[in-house]
Amino acid sequence: MAEPGNKAEYVVGVDLGGTKILAGIFDNSLECIGTAKVSTKPQRGVETVIERIERCVQDAVDEADLTMKQVAGVGIGAPGAVDFEMGSVIFAPNMEGWKDVPLKKELEKQLGVPVFVENDANIAVLGVHVAELKSKPRHVAGIFVGTGIGGGLIINGDLYSGFNHTAGEIGHMVIDINGPKCGCGNKGCFEALASRTAIFQRIKAGIKEGEKTLLTEMLGDALEDLRSGDLRKAIRRGDKFVGKVIEQTAEYIGIGIANLVNILSPEVVVLGGGVIEALSDEMMTIITKTAKEHAMPGTIKGVEIIASKLGDRAGITGAAVLARRETK
Amino acid sequence: MAEPGNKAEYVVGVDLGGTKILAGIFDNSLECIGTAKVSTKPQRGVETVIERIERCVQDAVDEADLTMKQVAGVGIGAPGAVDFEMGSVIFAPNMEGWKDVPLKKELEKQLGVPVFVENDANIAVLGVHVAELKSKPRHVAGIFVGTGIGGGLIINGDLYSGFNHTAGEIGHMVIDINGPKCGCGNKGCFEALASRTAIFQRIKAGIKEGEKTLLTEMLGDALEDLRSGDLRKAIRRGDKFVGKVIEQTAEYIGIGIANLVNILSPEVVVLGGGVIEALSDEMMTIITKTAKEHAMPGTIKGVEIIASKLGDRAGITGAAVLARRETK
Repeated sequence: MAEPGNKAEYVVGVDLGGTKILAGIFDNSLECIGTAKVSTKPQRGVETVIERIERCVQDAVDEADLTMKQVAGVGIGAPGAVDFEMGSVIFAPNMEGWKDVPLKKELEKQLGVPVFVENDANIAVLGVHVAELKSKPRHVAGIFVGTGIGGGLIINGDLYSGFNHTAGEIGHMVIDINGPKCGCGNKGCFEALASRTAIFQRIKAGIKEGEKTLLTEMLGDALEDLRSGDLRKAIRRGDKFVGKVIEQTAEYIGIGIANLVNILSPEVVVLGGGVIEALSDEMMTIITKTAKEHAMPGTIKGVEIIASKLGDRAGITGAAVLARRETK
Repeated sequence: MAEPGNKAEYVVGVDLGGTKILAGIFDNSLECIGTAKVSTKPQRGVETVIERIERCVQDAVDEADLTMKQVAGVGIGAPGAVDFEMGSVIFAPNMEGWKDVPLKKELEKQLGVPVFVENDANIAVLGVHVAELKSKPRHVAGIFVGTGIGGGLIINGDLYSGFNHTAGEIGHMVIDINGPKCGCGNKGCFEALASRTAIFQRIKAGIKEGEKTLLTEMLGDALEDLRSGDLRKAIRRGDKFVGKVIEQTAEYIGIGIANLVNILSPEVVVLGGGVIEALSDEMMTIITKTAKEHAMPGTIKGVEIIASKLGDRAGITGAAVLARRETK
């Protein structure tokens, strides 16, 4: 190396969430060599969040004893609709004020390197495809179950986003036409049945109807703060009601997968997100069984249904893959 | 032309259905210059059906005053799961005995030209994409509503069939988890809500519950023979009950489309099949309105939802496109 330490050979991947911002710096072999995390604080306004993203990127770079001069580009996964060409966030439902935010432009000004913005679920499936599945399967459906349900698709070996760049909005696929109301205004969306929000609604309704659960004891009046880890704890301590709710949720996810398998015939279906990370032991067997029962004969043969091992690193990894690809 | 009439410049497209076989011979500019039709008679066994396909192909060629020597290849759309590489029909639910039928091999022996076999809905969307949409849109979802509901996908400008070659099995996407039982064994599949079979079931149930309809007068005891055209006639003669059933069916189709738009972000959604051919005037406005109400904001912007003008020629046209492509 002629100029050691002076070549821009690293990339940074950022996972922008409604609660926290995670950044990771990756080397040429897609190894993560430093991370940083800050809270998002969306209530402080768009500009503050952009400053916090910038700081988080700088922190991750510093963590690895590097400088921005050694960074070729930054990829960002944002929680909402994204205009990839413009690098702007069109709309982010969980972050107040995020409408047509020129994230790429603003950050490039601050960071002095090229910035690329994608939808967070697209980014996550890209990360899983490249880092975990070694880019082997040609067609992959990614399902990320957290506060909502996001999805991302790899088709013919590449991220697929369709005509309006919105492909993979699987959270709003209607599964139960007469089901519970969804945040989008419709009824019985996948997200209204199987997200953490849906789980919380069913638990709240059950408690109201007199169901007994350890969660009331564990969380007291703070039931609203329910996290996926609390659900796991309750089940492992023998909470039958929570167990039943999670089993039902796994069945809904299985049906959602069957729909995707029928429509897309992927080779791998990969699950991630907070709910899956916390509860994969409790859910994966039921998810797979239900998916197999509901997919058309022949469509699910040989299809792998797996929980991603990348956990909350899927986002930063995918964002790094994007930055690498776009700066090559 | 050095050897007039001796160049194999034509292709034949065949639409193999449970009731009838349609064949068309096409010239280099994809103009259909002759057709033939025979009934399928699947109850007479697989061999008989293959003979009838052969005869139908010969008839179409003869109709155009040509001979098989001038035919470069034959494409066939078959109603079921197909192994494209092998050219075999793995399973055709509406044709008794059709399991692992080596259709390509058998027909090549008889016809002396290369034969290519695809799923009928895949073939139909290919025909619409090339002949009607002039291959312009990059991503197209085709929905064919008849006895069942079939689907086909064009992704990145080409027919997409996925890992198991089963992509587009949209008829078995679950839309109403607690809905009516489907032939596949599950509940609330798209097909169990919006196919002609589903329409018939709702009408039968309504009559049992005392609903008045002109259909009983029109068809008498032969209600089982209900065709899509009868539904149109009844509505145009003022049948409110049938009107309501068709309106509801159009809403289901709209929701199915919204699911596909959310998942795939196509540029065009094209509808076809007997139900749409007969009832597009009654259904298309409701279909489009419902799809727009149920798709996520931003996903359906600029998306065209149209009824194909090819009618029952979509299948033979697509089969001809396939044959042309594979023999070039």
